[in-house]
Amino acid sequence: MANTEPATVTNKQIIFSGYVSGFPKESDLKVTTTTIDLRIPERSTSVLVKNLYLSCDPYMRISMGKPEPLSSSLVPPFNTGEPIIGLGVSKVIDSGHPDYKKGDLLWGVVGWEEYSVITLFPYSHFKIHHTDVPLSYYTGLLGMPGMTAYAGFYEICSPKRGETVFVSAASGAVGQLVGQFAKLVGCYVVGSAGSKEKVDLLKTKFGFDDAFNYKEENDLNIALKRYFPEGIDIYFENVGGKMLDAVLINMKLNGRIAVCGMISQYNLVDPEGVHNLTTILYKRIKVQGFAVSDFYDKYSKFLDFVLPYIRQGKITYVEDITEGLESGPSALLGIFHGKNVGKQLFVVARE
Amino acid sequence: MANTEPATVTNKQIIFSGYVSGFPKESDLKVTTTTIDLRIPERSTSVLVKNLYLSCDPYMRISMGKPEPLSSSLVPPFNTGEPIIGLGVSKVIDSGHPDYKKGDLLWGVVGWEEYSVITLFPYSHFKIHHTDVPLSYYTGLLGMPGMTAYAGFYEICSPKRGETVFVSAASGAVGQLVGQFAKLVGCYVVGSAGSKEKVDLLKTKFGFDDAFNYKEENDLNIALKRYFPEGIDIYFENVGGKMLDAVLINMKLNGRIAVCGMISQYNLVDPEGVHNLTTILYKRIKVQGFAVSDFYDKYSKFLDFVLPYIRQGKITYVEDITEGLESGPSALLGIFHGKNVGKQLFVVARE
Repeated sequence: MANTEPATVTNKQIIFSGYVSGFPKESDLKVTTTTIDLRIPERSTSVLVKNLYLSCDPYMRISMGKPEPLSSSLVPPFNTGEPIIGLGVSKVIDSGHPDYKKGDLLWGVVGWEEYSVITLFPYSHFKIHHTDVPLSYYTGLLGMPGMTAYAGFYEICSPKRGETVFVSAASGAVGQLVGQFAKLVGCYVVGSAGSKEKVDLLKTKFGFDDAFNYKEENDLNIALKRYFPEGIDIYFENVGGKMLDAVLINMKLNGRIAVCGMISQYNLVDPEGVHNLTTILYKRIKVQGFAVSDFYDKYSKFLDFVLPYIRQGKITYVEDITEGLESGPSALLGIFHGKNVGKQLFVVARE
Repeated sequence: MANTEPATVTNKQIIFSGYVSGFPKESDLKVTTTTIDLRIPERSTSVLVKNLYLSCDPYMRISMGKPEPLSSSLVPPFNTGEPIIGLGVSKVIDSGHPDYKKGDLLWGVVGWEEYSVITLFPYSHFKIHHTDVPLSYYTGLLGMPGMTAYAGFYEICSPKRGETVFVSAASGAVGQLVGQFAKLVGCYVVGSAGSKEKVDLLKTKFGFDDAFNYKEENDLNIALKRYFPEGIDIYFENVGGKMLDAVLINMKLNGRIAVCGMISQYNLVDPEGVHNLTTILYKRIKVQGFAVSDFYDKYSKFLDFVLPYIRQGKITYVEDITEGLESGPSALLGIFHGKNVGKQLFVVARE
């Protein structure tokens, strides 16, 4: 098939300046322009894509840290001087791979750049078959964060009707879904977030039974006792640190804690101490770290589950979208200060 | 049947002085003498027993603490002015219960006293059928600690041949068995303990692949890296605090931590902070608190499993036995300073 695009075009990229200690700064991510040949060489099985939507996710802070074996088992570190790597929704421009042809849409691992050459490995990329929903959803509700909420809540937490559920960072990409899934099961669910706007969103848009602004609470233990006088069966952990400490002493017998993230700790040089771990013993609690990548074999099952709810308006999703590749760095940095309302992403191109 | 014992006898008891903060002292447990009628009243379903062996276990420190809802879900607090409650091996003197008759041996919940009136509830007491092994074993290897090691290791940790296992407080009532179970499965197992004598015991008597004295290590992280250069698959947690912190950063991907106890924390007014909890996320670790009482339905299966190994000399057990009810308080206090070598118990009467 004749390729109507020019053979070589400019390719704007967001380059990683080198590993970060403490909160990342704009200077850690620099915009440059290079060129790229839009044709895949013969006999290559790579795919060349144009990136449409790129995703800002908390785990990316881990990839910015000093490379070390511990965190690398969850996500690989970024390479200095190369485009940072994330998840995105992309359109195929040229393909050496039999499963993909020009014009196909996919989501998965790409560089922060206008065009990426991608190498396919199992579960690195998923073809997009349903386009009656917003394409950007494949960075969130229908992508990694959605699958994270699904696997973490249903598989790790084994929720039962009538149980009490607490979600931290509850208006975020994952949290807003966990709350809605909890309501589908028939749980009582409370979320915490860092602004009045987010707290309102939890209660009015996502159907949480209640919500609170953790920044307005002097004592998180007292706050949790107010919403959970009988204790918490399930904690969906996104933040770590002081919140985890307060949650632990409010857990019920045989409670479950799904450790999805600990965003409060990623930017700390010395992580906070958590003191109430004896509750794990006293209350026979399960604390389970998990990675969504271990559950991608259930992705099509997840789509079958969630798409009807979206189409019926029973699951909703709030996105925080900025415009242009250049907006990426500040959008990403913003999530570590809680600036985003809902799932943070940015548009590189609309088609 | 004519009861040949005198109707009323003296009954020495160890009385709880009131709740303890920090390390317990001898004055917290006082010896007194009262009297007891050795006949069970008509129509009562209680059982009157003579206590032979009484058990000193770390969890008893939790029962000494200020009564509060958290710890009470694991074990009830002791009552001030009453005999402290523990586990023991006893002989039936008189019985109003159809399942027990005079002369029967049992193990289970009794007071620290010469004679106890016991009320049976599910799994509170187990009749002893096998007496070709030392009776005292029913306070340890064949009692609660043995069942704890069995359930915690096999059920919670799901060990596989070739995996690496670390056990803290490894020469204790539970730890010495976990190490031996790990060898039966074909694991590599290392234990920590607090004296050269105990470390030697681990290596020469219990077949641990290696062992170290945690008191001689300046940096527990470095010590663990020496024994587990590839990391730890399974940690059997008995101590908590600094050791847990060091273990966390040495766990392998998909590691499992069975939280059996946290003896280093029970005597602290303010529990230590644990800083490396992000590893739970990075390494997708399961941390599971458990209580042996949830597994007593497997007790007869456990006996079928372990008795042949004992009879063949393939499982061994070290006990630290003191003489007389009066020796109980100092024996119990000693375990919080690591004075015991092996399972701590004391003899009240030999028959």
